[in-house]
Amino acid sequence: MIDRPATPLLDRVLLPSDLKALSDRELRQLADELRTETISAVSVTGGHLGAGLGVVELTVALHAVFDTPRDKIIWDVGHQCYPHKILTGRRDRIRTLRMGGGLAGFTKRAESPFDPFGAGHSSTSISAALGFAVARDLGGDPGDAIAVIGDGAMSAGMAYEALNNAGHLGKRLIVILNDNEMSIAPPVGAMSSYLTRLYSGAPFQELKAAAKGAVGMLPEPLQEGARRAKEMLKGMAVGGTLFEELGFSYVGPVDGHNLDQLLPLLRTVKSRATGPVLIHAVTRKGKGYAPAENAADRGHATGKFNMVTGVQAKASSNAPSYTSIFARALIDEAGRDDRILGITAAMPDGTGLKQFAERFPRRSFDVGIAEQHAVTFAAGLAAGGMKPFCAIYSTFLQRGYDQVVHDVAVQGLPVRFAIDRAGLVGQDGPTHAGAYDIAFLANLPGFVVMAAADEAELMHMVATAAAHDAGPIAFRFPRGEGTGVDLPARGEVLPLGRGRIIREGAGVALLSLGTRLSAAIEAAEALAARGIRPTIADARFAKPLDRDLILRLARGHDALITIEEGAIGGFGSHVAQLLAEEGVFDHGLKFRSMVLPDRFVDHDAPVAMYDDSALNAAHVEAKVLEVLGIGRIADRRA
Amino acid sequence: MIDRPATPLLDRVLLPSDLKALSDRELRQLADELRTETISAVSVTGGHLGAGLGVVELTVALHAVFDTPRDKIIWDVGHQCYPHKILTGRRDRIRTLRMGGGLAGFTKRAESPFDPFGAGHSSTSISAALGFAVARDLGGDPGDAIAVIGDGAMSAGMAYEALNNAGHLGKRLIVILNDNEMSIAPPVGAMSSYLTRLYSGAPFQELKAAAKGAVGMLPEPLQEGARRAKEMLKGMAVGGTLFEELGFSYVGPVDGHNLDQLLPLLRTVKSRATGPVLIHAVTRKGKGYAPAENAADRGHATGKFNMVTGVQAKASSNAPSYTSIFARALIDEAGRDDRILGITAAMPDGTGLKQFAERFPRRSFDVGIAEQHAVTFAAGLAAGGMKPFCAIYSTFLQRGYDQVVHDVAVQGLPVRFAIDRAGLVGQDGPTHAGAYDIAFLANLPGFVVMAAADEAELMHMVATAAAHDAGPIAFRFPRGEGTGVDLPARGEVLPLGRGRIIREGAGVALLSLGTRLSAAIEAAEALAARGIRPTIADARFAKPLDRDLILRLARGHDALITIEEGAIGGFGSHVAQLLAEEGVFDHGLKFRSMVLPDRFVDHDAPVAMYDDSALNAAHVEAKVLEVLGIGRIADRRA
Repeated sequence: MIDRPATPLLDRVLLPSDLKALSDRELRQLADELRTETISAVSVTGGHLGAGLGVVELTVALHAVFDTPRDKIIWDVGHQCYPHKILTGRRDRIRTLRMGGGLAGFTKRAESPFDPFGAGHSSTSISAALGFAVARDLGGDPGDAIAVIGDGAMSAGMAYEALNNAGHLGKRLIVILNDNEMSIAPPVGAMSSYLTRLYSGAPFQELKAAAKGAVGMLPEPLQEGARRAKEMLKGMAVGGTLFEELGFSYVGPVDGHNLDQLLPLLRTVKSRATGPVLIHAVTRKGKGYAPAENAADRGHATGKFNMVTGVQAKASSNAPSYTSIFARALIDEAGRDDRILGITAAMPDGTGLKQFAERFPRRSFDVGIAEQHAVTFAAGLAAGGMKPFCAIYSTFLQRGYDQVVHDVAVQGLPVRFAIDRAGLVGQDGPTHAGAYDIAFLANLPGFVVMAAADEAELMHMVATAAAHDAGPIAFRFPRGEGTGVDLPARGEVLPLGRGRIIREGAGVALLSLGTRLSAAIEAAEALAARGIRPTIADARFAKPLDRDLILRLARGHDALITIEEGAIGGFGSHVAQLLAEEGVFDHGLKFRSMVLPDRFVDHDAPVAMYDDSALNAAHVEAKVLEVLGIGRIADRRA
Repeated sequence: MIDRPATPLLDRVLLPSDLKALSDRELRQLADELRTETISAVSVTGGHLGAGLGVVELTVALHAVFDTPRDKIIWDVGHQCYPHKILTGRRDRIRTLRMGGGLAGFTKRAESPFDPFGAGHSSTSISAALGFAVARDLGGDPGDAIAVIGDGAMSAGMAYEALNNAGHLGKRLIVILNDNEMSIAPPVGAMSSYLTRLYSGAPFQELKAAAKGAVGMLPEPLQEGARRAKEMLKGMAVGGTLFEELGFSYVGPVDGHNLDQLLPLLRTVKSRATGPVLIHAVTRKGKGYAPAENAADRGHATGKFNMVTGVQAKASSNAPSYTSIFARALIDEAGRDDRILGITAAMPDGTGLKQFAERFPRRSFDVGIAEQHAVTFAAGLAAGGMKPFCAIYSTFLQRGYDQVVHDVAVQGLPVRFAIDRAGLVGQDGPTHAGAYDIAFLANLPGFVVMAAADEAELMHMVATAAAHDAGPIAFRFPRGEGTGVDLPARGEVLPLGRGRIIREGAGVALLSLGTRLSAAIEAAEALAARGIRPTIADARFAKPLDRDLILRLARGHDALITIEEGAIGGFGSHVAQLLAEEGVFDHGLKFRSMVLPDRFVDHDAPVAMYDDSALNAAHVEAKVLEVLGIGRIADRRA
């Protein structure tokens, strides 16, 4: 770490309104200072670096030209918002980014009026901005609505739905396509090629701006250049056609790092736009910081790092991550079965499918940010005789839920769902929490739903999924590193719907699904000191339930406590339904179900989030004591 | 009803392979007979008529040219598949369409190998077809993959995601855009205008076919016409650009009712296509049957009718439908509060928003088949100060689930969800069942989830939702007509999280959520003969739970039975969680939760589906007897 960089101009900017007093030349300097400050802050906190660096000039230009927060800037995904946060009254807390109690890593309504619409997931900004625009025209909140959306986010159907509707409604609406040719990974899909063609043929530096059909909207000094550009574009197979066909005025491409282009362009759009306008700005992710620019992912997400060298602080990690174990196990299975395919929705790194793709390029599919398509594409592959593994984070699988129900479950097709980031996810916070997958999958007829208690179990579940051709199957595992258990040479196919006893005890049974098993074991060790020796079991399956095991536990103990890292409606609810139906409650059972709390859990270190959620070992211990009536006695003594 | 029409050629066609022996002239006659047979069948069964009539020639041409079921035709939505079913060995059962035990109203894998991928929801076909195409190229099932998708379905982001991915992968894949300018309602959105421009400028009859960039793919006799067409199109602002930008060869527009165009075109595409091809066929929904062609919805869905006059048999309905009550109540509320808006995703008729739009055109939004956008657009409207009512069927809300979580719930925005078709939906069957909404909404922090027990309750819930500005709120109600209760002049705002006692009794408490209350009441009346007088309560809220009411019922009775028309994980699970946490099970409670069964319930008459689901009054009665130990005694006596 080095001393904080000198930022004399930035030091005078407390709120965006302070930008109004600055000259264009000063705004250029401000952008440079803002870039330095962003790098400095992220070097301390870690986080999303590349995206923010790519929009430094855009951030300055938007706040200089528009009147925020009256005018509403909606940052798609929101991970590029660190410069925006610095400029909007949150600089004093910018070195708390993604830390417990600190600033969120995304835009967040609760945090600032300058964040009119929070995000985290991709491709929502145009829909939200259209909502603001329509509300304004009907007498709601005044001001412009400006969506800033990356090219990667444009692969999502949701963005297309919004463009389609916005073009139809014709309301004044500004969409800035921040085209850096990168979402998280290099983008895929025909839209991406199309965008590249839009500017690859145009001699960018000379043109300043190329506007087909939107020349009148350009500032005077640019109009001539634009007319020339239009002439040049005529006869080429490029142009803003696609967006114009959808009803937008297309302006661009413009250099998104050149304030001499951005400022006059935005001023003109502000003064003249009547309907929906799409400004195509070309930027570079990681711009202005060599270690980020030179990284394969352009510094997408980073740990803390040395600001001069860019070298990241080594995380003190011993055990391999669940993701890497999944990738290794899938590659292993795929080596023995050439029908196994891998599908990711723009998360090849995060899901580990990148390694799979390196080994099996023809059998790996990155469909872009397109979970709906990913799921039904996988259903089609399964119907065609393949064994597709859909590797999607729990939170993003929500995007494909209808397809999971309608195309996979109703048809009973053997699609395998590898659900990473299940449960709490630390610094990414509530927008990325994988809280609902057990509940929304386990009530689908014919689905098999597993949760791995550790990384060896994950290997078994990959093998089980590979072998299961009778219908859909899902297995969930958390973010982060494993427990460090010994790994088998190869995963074993588990018997369907069978859990396992970890430790036989008496009086109380702890029935865990997933990695909270470690909390149950730790709690049992603490309880041993009081002479309480719970039975501990790992359910492995949320569906089908191990009826024999559960009924045996229920009938052989005074108390049964289920533990899972998911919201109500999941494993514990299925167990309760079974117990009710079997009449186990009729004559009394001290049953409790420990689930995620009924509120969104703010970003923090994982252990703090478990504390906040009452799912740590101490909470399991307390629950056991409470159920046995010992907690209350202890309280009375105190 | 008249005698069956004479269909001499069709009578000889048992399977599509029989078409190979027919001349093109005979195929034309076959199409005419197929149309007549389709009309005759639907006049007996009711169902989706217009869509099927629009694809009669396409159905004949596809089966004549391709080798089904080796080649796979994937009908988007599947409601246009009646002619396809007639040609593929199901003619003998075509007059059982949508009846219990009869043919499904959509394509269905379990029904026939000629249905390689079932449907019901829109816009899945390109994803599925791409799955088949990729599987084929990797050694899976051989044959061509052909998606037939309507223009309305193209407004869905999912279709765009699939085009984007297909264009990128470049596999041989055939997409037929069946452009009838109608989805269910007249289509909306910029894409629709674009498609209209694609052919509105071109003198269709003269051109035969217009192919920009795909001339080489046309059959010889059409090539010259196409070249001329291309010349004419040059300089016009139309063409297949958008699809070509996404990597498809675009062929069209062609007359989808002219076999002289379709047959040679499909033969050529079959013999020459190497990558993805989009064939733009223009058709007319309801084609060839005047009563359908002249209807506003082009005979989209119809009851039984007189084949000569087209007059539909009057349904013996007395009570108004839940949908109409919702529409009336919303219009009423909106008359008093100009911040109330209505949003539908291409279902203005089905949701009742059509009436709302007639009264408040500026405050009504049909966003197309775009549930993802609909939800986040509503979130933006709410953030901008409006009171949006998102009227979406339960089953279609699954499409916007991530947006419900991420854009509405996480931000606590006051979007109102009017969830029609909640529960079983009769003839539309399992793809349209509204089984999961209670479960997937009630575990979202801050959500209010209500279910109406009758149409008066629905009015109260509309009023409650209108008044609730503190966060998201949803209310569900079923398909079909109400119970005929007296309606209040105006809905009352209900106290949040408070249920109501319907009848005080003893021993057993029946706690219903939603319209199964009528089954509970009926069961109680039957039980009275045995001297059993259950307490009956209507929970009204799945969230927040009426804790006081539930605990009072649990502690004041030996048995508590919850009843809901939803899958496990919903209301009953939340009640169980509360009872467990409060220690009510510790000393015994005969608790049961009646929910939809853990399997997909086939289409049938509603009462038969309730029987199949064990949710009729008789089942409630049996459950009470079982819990009280009386059922078993009775059994032993028998």
